[in-house]
Amino acid sequence: MPRQPEHPDLEDVQLARVFSALGDPARLRIMTVLADRTEHQREEFTVDVGPSTLSHHMKILREAGLTHHRFEGTRCFVSLRADTFDRFATVLDSTLQLLATDQG
Amino acid sequence: MPRQPEHPDLEDVQLARVFSALGDPARLRIMTVLADRTEHQREEFTVDVGPSTLSHHMKILREAGLTHHRFEGTRCFVSLRADTFDRFATVLDSTLQLLATDQG
Repeated sequence: MPRQPEHPDLEDVQLARVFSALGDPARLRIMTVLADRTEHQREEFTVDVGPSTLSHHMKILREAGLTHHRFEGTRCFVSLRADTFDRFATVLDSTLQLLATDQG
Repeated sequence: MPRQPEHPDLEDVQLARVFSALGDPARLRIMTVLADRTEHQREEFTVDVGPSTLSHHMKILREAGLTHHRFEGTRCFVSLRADTFDRFATVLDSTLQLLATDQG
């Protein structure tokens, strides 16, 4: 099994950092793709940035506690972190709803 | 009447920029003070930063469309922007509720 990326503990997830991670159009686009609560691979994040910039955005979401990343061979599967979405449910669920209606 | 600070038009207020503005502990603290929807002066924002840093934080909130700033003589009165809170009501109202319960 490949080495798995690090994720912050739930108690270390900070609202300010969550907001900061959401504060970018490309990262909001990634969140929109992830909103169906299933795992996605990076090819599915149709953001208009290069591979290293996409990796940077994904790292920010992971380190903020918003996403869970799982390596399988050379592939990385990304999904929303259910525990963080439980903790900040009202804010994050309404964010996904807003993104689904394409406002903002 | 003194020159008033500039505010973005509501249609130019972007969700990503709103989140970016909220992505800082000091600015979340300012939002907590403003949550009663009345005007406040900068002395009331009890954040542990110097005057120029506080001005910087207030500028970011204003330029993101979150706050309205009104000069009166040498004083500046700050309040939440009702139109932005109407537009992103679910996300922003739940953010204020979360801040009121001191989570995050």
